[in-house]
Amino acid sequence: MISMYDEKNIIAVDLGATNLRVALFGGRKLKKIIKSKTPDTGNIGIVVTDRIIDLIYELIRPKEVQKILSIGVSSAGPLDISKGLVVNSPNMKYEYIDIVQPLKDEFQKDVYLINDCRAGVLGEIYAGSGQKCENLVYITISTGIGGGAYANGNLILGRDGNAGEIGHFCVDTSYNLPCLCKGKGHWEAYSSGANIPRFFRAFCNQKGYPFDEEKCQSAENIFGNAKQGEKEYVLFLDELGKINARGISNVVLAYSPEKIILDGSVALSNRDEILTGIKKHYDSYLKMPKIEFSSLNGLSPLYGAAYYSFQKVCIKDESI
Amino acid sequence: MISMYDEKNIIAVDLGATNLRVALFGGRKLKKIIKSKTPDTGNIGIVVTDRIIDLIYELIRPKEVQKILSIGVSSAGPLDISKGLVVNSPNMKYEYIDIVQPLKDEFQKDVYLINDCRAGVLGEIYAGSGQKCENLVYITISTGIGGGAYANGNLILGRDGNAGEIGHFCVDTSYNLPCLCKGKGHWEAYSSGANIPRFFRAFCNQKGYPFDEEKCQSAENIFGNAKQGEKEYVLFLDELGKINARGISNVVLAYSPEKIILDGSVALSNRDEILTGIKKHYDSYLKMPKIEFSSLNGLSPLYGAAYYSFQKVCIKDESI
Repeated sequence: MISMYDEKNIIAVDLGATNLRVALFGGRKLKKIIKSKTPDTGNIGIVVTDRIIDLIYELIRPKEVQKILSIGVSSAGPLDISKGLVVNSPNMKYEYIDIVQPLKDEFQKDVYLINDCRAGVLGEIYAGSGQKCENLVYITISTGIGGGAYANGNLILGRDGNAGEIGHFCVDTSYNLPCLCKGKGHWEAYSSGANIPRFFRAFCNQKGYPFDEEKCQSAENIFGNAKQGEKEYVLFLDELGKINARGISNVVLAYSPEKIILDGSVALSNRDEILTGIKKHYDSYLKMPKIEFSSLNGLSPLYGAAYYSFQKVCIKDESI
Repeated sequence: MISMYDEKNIIAVDLGATNLRVALFGGRKLKKIIKSKTPDTGNIGIVVTDRIIDLIYELIRPKEVQKILSIGVSSAGPLDISKGLVVNSPNMKYEYIDIVQPLKDEFQKDVYLINDCRAGVLGEIYAGSGQKCENLVYITISTGIGGGAYANGNLILGRDGNAGEIGHFCVDTSYNLPCLCKGKGHWEAYSSGANIPRFFRAFCNQKGYPFDEEKCQSAENIFGNAKQGEKEYVLFLDELGKINARGISNVVLAYSPEKIILDGSVALSNRDEILTGIKKHYDSYLKMPKIEFSSLNGLSPLYGAAYYSFQKVCIKDESI
């Protein structure tokens, strides 16, 4: 069934808080990709979808649209899959973005929306180092933290496709740092790129360590200082390791994967530091799975969006 | 495919830390059940399996064995499914119990082992109030805390069938109570029947409340005192609610179910108190699903073990 589509073209879109990517896939191959910054001014709910449409027309000419099988869109969540919307995303500042219907109207094609992290795990299964896994979890540690899980050969979507919002796992009740979603003690509130500087300052305040505001403006600064052996920063990485290890432990308890693939700028730029902390403080009573880093250069969600849309078309055709 | 087995007989076993149940199912109907205490003295690894064999012979005569299609066993985890063992269960005090092979040898039938909470969710799907659910989580709060999840119409097993060990989710770093599994801050270490008295004492010690040792010997005592309006106990239930709400929040983030079914003696005996705490302190940014209580009188894992074994035989026959 799958082979008959191998030569068909699919458009994949990956909408992140920072970057927007649009690509053309020919069967399993990525043929062409365009990257842009995600618009963050104007009437975001409209501007973002308009930009996606413009990028698709940069990718293919109008008369090539008929050769497209379907469009797959991966986006930061939470999503309302039934309405084709991104809703109240804590990392993108708008109430909702209407994605699916405008793309359907413009291109007259089936459009399938999936959360970027659920797309990520499919991308790893399809094209990354998860190809032989029956039980896999994909975790991205970047602006936010999110996950996608695949168990016993099936993608776990849950209601509205929101299963895997692991960045909001409660993992701490000592610092009680508030999350953008208004919860407290959530993994993402400590360990995402956007929140590491704040966690560093909370850590120093709690321990009574003085710190220089200018040296801890970004996650990059903080990891850099630790790599140079600065004491407070080294100690902080151990504290960060506890938080990450609790997040990972909870993930393993929920899904019992044989492998976890880490992605996202924070994880990919600080591999040894992230892994050391997780291994030292891992606290699940289940065996630790293999932990690897994504080899898809940040494109797992894009590959996954293509694969998801492709699978959905196959299922639709089978049911006709 | 399923209808051809409707009249076949299946033996189901539910091995818990406290109770051992063995039942005969005729298709979807529970025909006969025998209950016993789980042996807790002697060479447990052998005694438990011997008791199961004896109970099966109480249930059916030796010459009826040939009419049995297969045997399904649900057991408290963790399990090594590939070897058919229960291994290092924190709530049953033995290194491992060899279940599958001795039953195969005795009855010359296929034997399928599944964790009791994963069996529980299947039981609810099969015979309980989860029958129309696509996304369901089953949680038992009794001696320990465990869960089973069903997403998009599939049972989530994960590696070794251990996906859903949610009782070991880290949900607190303030009291840092140790778990039997040696981890700290795990949900089960606070909210299971066995641990509620210890959590109550830790709570009183932290708040400086005096307490009478004799009035807090069991979870039942503690809920009873709170129901009578005793101040420290009422305040404690609110604290317990925070812990349960964090556990439930993490469950929703992991699986995004449309319904959660609570089971286990602690949950079933204190429905209003448990639900009030969860609803008050729920802290996931995903919408709270419906929360109901099991209507299967503690037999969900037994129903699930029967159903699981039945499904496995169907799959095996299809592949021949």
